[in-house]
Amino acid sequence: MAFRASVLTLYPEMFPGPLGVSLAGEGLRKGLWSLETHQIRDHGIGRHRNVDDNPAGGGAGMVLRCDVLAAAIDAAVPADDGRPRLLMSPRGRRLDQGQVREWVAGEGVVIVCGRFEGVDERVIEGRGLTEISVGDYILSGGEMAALLLLDACVRLIPGVMGKELSGQDESFENGLLEYPHYTRPREWEGRGLPEALLSGDHARIARWRREQAEKITRERRPDLIGKA
Amino acid sequence: MAFRASVLTLYPEMFPGPLGVSLAGEGLRKGLWSLETHQIRDHGIGRHRNVDDNPAGGGAGMVLRCDVLAAAIDAAVPADDGRPRLLMSPRGRRLDQGQVREWVAGEGVVIVCGRFEGVDERVIEGRGLTEISVGDYILSGGEMAALLLLDACVRLIPGVMGKELSGQDESFENGLLEYPHYTRPREWEGRGLPEALLSGDHARIARWRREQAEKITRERRPDLIGKA
Repeated sequence: MAFRASVLTLYPEMFPGPLGVSLAGEGLRKGLWSLETHQIRDHGIGRHRNVDDNPAGGGAGMVLRCDVLAAAIDAAVPADDGRPRLLMSPRGRRLDQGQVREWVAGEGVVIVCGRFEGVDERVIEGRGLTEISVGDYILSGGEMAALLLLDACVRLIPGVMGKELSGQDESFENGLLEYPHYTRPREWEGRGLPEALLSGDHARIARWRREQAEKITRERRPDLIGKA
Repeated sequence: MAFRASVLTLYPEMFPGPLGVSLAGEGLRKGLWSLETHQIRDHGIGRHRNVDDNPAGGGAGMVLRCDVLAAAIDAAVPADDGRPRLLMSPRGRRLDQGQVREWVAGEGVVIVCGRFEGVDERVIEGRGLTEISVGDYILSGGEMAALLLLDACVRLIPGVMGKELSGQDESFENGLLEYPHYTRPREWEGRGLPEALLSGDHARIARWRREQAEKITRERRPDLIGKA
């Protein structure tokens, strides 16, 4: 069965957005993956469909109510739905390529997008949400992070990228940053191509690329060394 | 002068996309920030406006040509434009909140979105591009990463978020992940509120939040401890 994404959000109009364009968009139209959005506000309280309230204990910002979010989740996702339930949050586990591959091998994902100051902690526990962070920065809400996460997943779905997916040579797929790329023209503004790449010697080219990848990783991301 | 974002891309239709919605979109319409896109393909070669070619030395994927990208950059950005020129790339320096704040304090950013296997290394050097990574995963192109980066910037522009921006309490702003949030109702599915938050004692609440933030950071992200 195709990869299914269900997104709970206060801004369903943000989806599919950039995922409706290019190869991800073609894949969506071909049914290689599916995307449904659920408006959290439909489960808001009272005439104004309130979804948030002041933080307990005081402070700035508004907090998404646990009862509202739980009702939205219960309506959107059957209890026996085996997909992981993710909450985009800067407090979460950092997204990495291994995690992306794991999700793509499954049935899909349910993604809850927070807004405001945060969501009531009790719904994270009560509905078994896994907090996922796309990086150490703050966004206006979970929607942009959800789009990013889905983009990372969708490009790995068989058939979506076609020949454009070169796959295993890319950064993180082997625990290293990628080696530098070059193409035509052979000379540009006085800059030539590395000699190894012109040699036609496949073993030498592979060795050069490996050395470059290791060098760049050591220089830029020593934390990755030995992690793969 | 308002924060100006210039984006070079093969998919200008992805912009402003989700940034045209909600508070970021209101800020855009009010002129609190501006966004212009530049189609790289306008500088492509020949009748088919080719922008890419096979990697020197062989291998899968296609590489964005340095001459095409340089022409696009030169046409879009005057030589004396002082804004940082960023290339979204998984090989780059990892984006963090401190970097976002630094850019927002300036005039804006120029963002080059790569596609395919990568861009010819020579244009990175020749046009002084700074490679920026939003995280350790692979996207279908730089566009989604650019949207994310701009979202992180735009929410900090004065006037964009209004009262919804609580600012300094948030994750990473003080080198810690954020403490858990709670709001009404006082009891939900048998789960109450932490006693400290009900005490009305501001010093005790602040202490509890600090302790929680430290505990969560130690458990989830020990790498952040001592970094701030």
